[in-house]
This record gives sequence, C-alpha cells and structure tokens, in this order.
Amino acid sequence: MKRRSFLTKAGLGAAGLTAATLAAPAIAQDVRKWRLVSAWPRNLPGPGVAAQMLADRITALSGGRIEVELFAAGEIVPGPGVFDAVAEGTAEIYHAVPAYWGSKSKGILLFGSQPLGLTAIEQHGWMLQGGGQALYDEMYGRFGLKPFLCGNSGPQWAGWFRNEITSLDDLKGLKYRTTGLNSEVMSKLGVAVEAMSGPAMFQALQSGALDAGEFIGPWSDSALGLYQVATNYYGPGPGEPSSAEECAINLDVWNDLPDDLKQAVAAAAESLYNPVLAEYNTKHALALRELVSQHGVTLREWPEEITIAMGNAMGEVIGELRASEDELVRRITESFLEYRKLMVEYAPWADNGQMNMRGLDYNYGDA
Amino acid sequence: MKRRSFLTKAGLGAAGLTAATLAAPAIAQDVRKWRLVSAWPRNLPGPGVAAQMLADRITALSGGRIEVELFAAGEIVPGPGVFDAVAEGTAEIYHAVPAYWGSKSKGILLFGSQPLGLTAIEQHGWMLQGGGQALYDEMYGRFGLKPFLCGNSGPQWAGWFRNEITSLDDLKGLKYRTTGLNSEVMSKLGVAVEAMSGPAMFQALQSGALDAGEFIGPWSDSALGLYQVATNYYGPGPGEPSSAEECAINLDVWNDLPDDLKQAVAAAAESLYNPVLAEYNTKHALALRELVSQHGVTLREWPEEITIAMGNAMGEVIGELRASEDELVRRITESFLEYRKLMVEYAPWADNGQMNMRGLDYNYGDA
Repeated sequence: MKRRSFLTKAGLGAAGLTAATLAAPAIAQDVRKWRLVSAWPRNLPGPGVAAQMLADRITALSGGRIEVELFAAGEIVPGPGVFDAVAEGTAEIYHAVPAYWGSKSKGILLFGSQPLGLTAIEQHGWMLQGGGQALYDEMYGRFGLKPFLCGNSGPQWAGWFRNEITSLDDLKGLKYRTTGLNSEVMSKLGVAVEAMSGPAMFQALQSGALDAGEFIGPWSDSALGLYQVATNYYGPGPGEPSSAEECAINLDVWNDLPDDLKQAVAAAAESLYNPVLAEYNTKHALALRELVSQHGVTLREWPEEITIAMGNAMGEVIGELRASEDELVRRITESFLEYRKLMVEYAPWADNGQMNMRGLDYNYGDA
Repeated sequence: MKRRSFLTKAGLGAAGLTAATLAAPAIAQDVRKWRLVSAWPRNLPGPGVAAQMLADRITALSGGRIEVELFAAGEIVPGPGVFDAVAEGTAEIYHAVPAYWGSKSKGILLFGSQPLGLTAIEQHGWMLQGGGQALYDEMYGRFGLKPFLCGNSGPQWAGWFRNEITSLDDLKGLKYRTTGLNSEVMSKLGVAVEAMSGPAMFQALQSGALDAGEFIGPWSDSALGLYQVATNYYGPGPGEPSSAEECAINLDVWNDLPDDLKQAVAAAAESLYNPVLAEYNTKHALALRELVSQHGVTLREWPEEITIAMGNAMGEVIGELRASEDELVRRITESFLEYRKLMVEYAPWADNGQMNMRGLDYNYGDA
C-alpha cells in the first residue's frame, strides 16, 4: 500500500494537519531536525501510521521549527532499541508502547496497559487528572527521557487460537504471544508466554512454534494476516482493556526547547490521542465485519472462568508491585490503584451503564 | 472561587499549556484579537472552565498571533445568543453545546448528543472517522460558522427528582428540565419538558416550578447546589450517553486565516477533547462520593422499563429526522445511524465487554 494513501486515510483530524499543508510565517532560521525512531514497520496499519502522524503533527504545530523525519524499525535501530537510542541521543524522539520496557522497570508497564485495568479514556484520565503524568515523567527522567502518551489502540482481543479454549486447563503449557503485564498474568496461569514482535507471529503460528497469540485487534491483526494461520478469534481480552502508545524525547533535547516549542510538542502528542484511538476503534469494527464475512473467522467469547483467574493472578502481580524495592514503583502502583478504584466505582453510572442500557431491546428506527 | 485556582486545576495537559507561559518568538505584528463569547457563567465547573481552556490554548498554539479573550454569558451577549452573535460577526468565536441550537435545525442536535446513541469517544470517532465533520461543516456553513467539537462532559445523569420514580406512569405530566433530543424523547413519554438554563434549575426545583431536571453530572450539578432541593439522583441517563461541547468561528474570520493558524485553532480544539472529558469523568466520580457521604443524596438506578420506552420514542424521533424535508438533515441522520450501528456491533468486543469483565468477582490485590 502506498504511503500517501495511508496518510490520507489516517484521520489527521478536522483540519487535516500535515506538514505538507503548512503555510509560511514559520521562522526559517533555527530549524531543529529530529529523527523519530519508531518501533514499527513503516505505515503498519495502526502504530506505524500513528508514528507518521506524530512526526507530521510536531512539524506542523511547531510552525516548521522542528522538522521531524520518521525512521521505521530497523532503519536506524531495531524496534526494541528505540528507548535506548533516544536515551543515548542517537535519535531525538521515539514512538513505541510502554509495554516494551518492562525490563527497564516493571513500573513502566502500568503506563501502557493493565490486565482488568483502565480503558483508553481512563488511562488518559489517570495521566491528566490522577497524577499519572508526574510519575511517568519521574520514571522516564531516570533514563534521560521526557514521555507523553500520544495514542491508544483501544481494547485488545485475547487473540488468535489454533484450537478452541474452554477452560483453565486448556491454558497449561499453551505457547502464547502477548506483552507487558499480561505476560506475567498468563504465566501465573501456566501459559508458556513467548516474546516476539507482532509481525513475527504469522510464521510462528503457521509453524506451530506458537499455539496462540494476541497482537492488537481486528484491523492491525488483519494486516498481519493472522486469520490465515489461526481461525478462532477470542475477545474481548481482559489482559489489555486498552493499550497506550507513547513517544519520548531525549531529555537534553527537551530541556533545550523554548517553552513555546515544548507546548507545541505536548499539544501534538495530546491532540493525537483521540484521532489515533478513533481510527483504531472504527477500523477494528470494520475489519471485524470483514474477518467474519470474508475470511471465515470464528468469533469466540473469552471464558469467564479464565477472566476471573486472570483477575486473581493480576492481584498477585499487584501485590508484587506494591512490595517493590523501588519506592517509585510503589508510588506508581498506588496511584494507578487509586484512580482505577475511582473509575470502577463510577463506571456503572457512566460509560458502562450507558452501553449496557444501549444494548436493551427497543426499536431505534434504523431498520 | 478565584479564577486562577480554576485554571490551575483545569487539567490543561501535560505541559500546562497556557497563554501565560508562552515564550517569545511569536510574531509580534499582525496579532488578531478574538472575542470568545461563552454560553456559561465564568469558570462554572465544567463548561465555564473548558471555555477558558479553549481561549488560552488557541492563544498559546497560535504563538500569540491570535489573542483570545473570554466573555462569559451576558457580558457581550446572553448565553443563548452566542451562535447568532458569532454568525453575525459581533464576536469571532463561541463556546457552547450543539444541544442549544435545535431551533436552527434539528439536524444540529445529533452533533451534540443522541438518546441511547454514541459515547464520548464514539462521538469524536464519528467526526474524525465516520464522515461527521464534513456534515457538521456543511450544516454550520449555512449559518456562516466553522465548527469543532472541543470537549465532552461525558455520560449524563437522568437527574434530580423531588420524588421517586418507579414506572412510566410516574412520568406523565412531570415537569422536567432537559435539552436537545432528549426533550423530544421525554415529551413523547408524556413529560412536561421545561426549557431553562442549568443555573435556573435550583430555584425552579425549590419552588416546585420543576418536579425534576438534569444538568450534567455530579461535579457540575454539585456546583449548582441541586442536591439541596431534590434528593433522588437518578443515573445513568439514557437521554445523553455523552454530550459534546463545541466552538464555532465566524466563517469569514476562519477563511481569512492563513493555513498554519487554521491548523493551530483546529489542534487547540482537538487537543482539548480528552483533557475536558478526563476532567469531567474524574471530578464527577469524586463529587459523587461527596454527594453520598456528605450530602445525604440517594442514588437510584433509572428504571429499565423507562429506558426501553425512551429507546422506542427515540425510534420515532429518528423516523422524523429521516423524513425531514431538509436533505442535509437526512444525510446527517443516516451518517449517525451508520456509525452508531458499527459501534453498537463492536462494543461487546470492546469497551462494553471490557468494563463488564472488570466488574466480575476476583481479588485485585488492592484491598
């Protein structure tokens, strides 16, 4: 697929913010050139597209005073290397997901996704209103980075299974690809969790090196062709009620920015959260129709027994995080738990209650 | 409460975007001065705060080339007059809700809120990914306006009732304050819908001129003191699964902007959607705790029988919109219905399914 066609379809928002349409009064002197290293293949539906949107939007909102060029995974550094590359100054900014950095600190994983945790909007809410951003800054500051959430791929699926799953017993020894805290939860249930990139899943499922695996959701998963090698698609996936995408800037580069450019970069990240999320939600829903109608995929509901076991396993993981030797990890965990508690309490009166009511039986006049 | 304290608490996002922190390289000549007329009292928790955030953020992201000054309801024009004032050029931009403009066209109401319709994120998704923005532009263009959604007050409550409601019969003749399409739905159920501003509700409930009414949710409703005059608080309110806030710019003013300032204004609106929503969601949840623990409010679940009747009544409203003599209203309605259908279909695999799973019984380790 051609690059421009992705950009056109990428939902850049109401005014179609792109570097290309940028008009003139930008200050020509003193242009900063940033290399954005992405953890994704170029224009991979979902995260690859979102990385390009970020590059373009920073360029646009800075009035051209920061020119951002995107380098896909492997072009300067491999995807898993972007965190270190930016921390060390090999590139100025990266686009990835917090879920990839658990080896740096388990506390980082909470900024991305938590089994039976926060929805996409709640996750942004924790950052903006629940003290999350200050903790995120503090943690990434240790590594010489300034982080922002800049998108969310929304609620994830439990994934693609070669065989049907009906009980907890079926999980024992199952070779399953997932990431982040969900890896720890599934391990506690006896799953043999395999770490690999999303794109590597196709071959692994095909060869039997994997029995099952989850990547994102129907849109991105379809792009990888996973329906060709495993036909049972299980959802929703309690391991990731949402999954935030992030960018992080080298801290020296960040500190060197004048305030107005800091604001432009922050606004670029913040303004992309919903366009990215809206694109995932819409295209996932459209892709799901296609998976069922054209590719013969069988949709299966994730067994409740397993969800409950996952909740209890996450309870153990939470216990470990609360007992961390790193007091910052303990503070991040408590902050997350406090915000989650507030949202869980309010949800039946809010989005959850609304969506359940919407599912009742009435005639909406749209037949 | 002092103005600065609101601004500080207003969740302006990660970098604290404000005009005050704006640094210098802004182009001093050619500064545009915009009057933002708001439909709200100055700094009313919720919409009044959001209007100020919008003014500040346009100033900041334009690099100071647009200086936006906020005028609260009544300072230049009364709240219900802001649409006409900006259309006629008395002011450059307004902040209000689409729900207020049903007398201009019923089609406008769909951009704000639909009984048993879209959640806050889905509503933004319709704009960004479902063709909504083009229709919104076309409709407001008729009046000489360029519109953007710039926030959402989230899922609304059914509201404050002096007496308990247990069946459809209890609604007959009930004097109830609501807005937008919910007014039409409730009228069909025999409710005597009363139009009045939110702040006017307090006295009307106290005097018995109203039996019941809804404004927004716990945070904003608490600020109006409604719990003092009606103690039964019903939720969730199927009449408004979310309620979008909007701004609109005089079309001549908009067309006269260079592209980079158009982008800055669009990004200001887009970047506020989630900070505004996150603030409502968080502060509603916190205020609800206080309403119950400190103000003796009785929380009551909205009766399912009434929700179903509201769904059927909305079906009749949809039928009327689909039969509108205005072909643009018909196109807006079909576009909304198509996006709603997609989201209703996907919700059980996505946010709705996730939140229902989260409500199961397990030990999350946070006791």
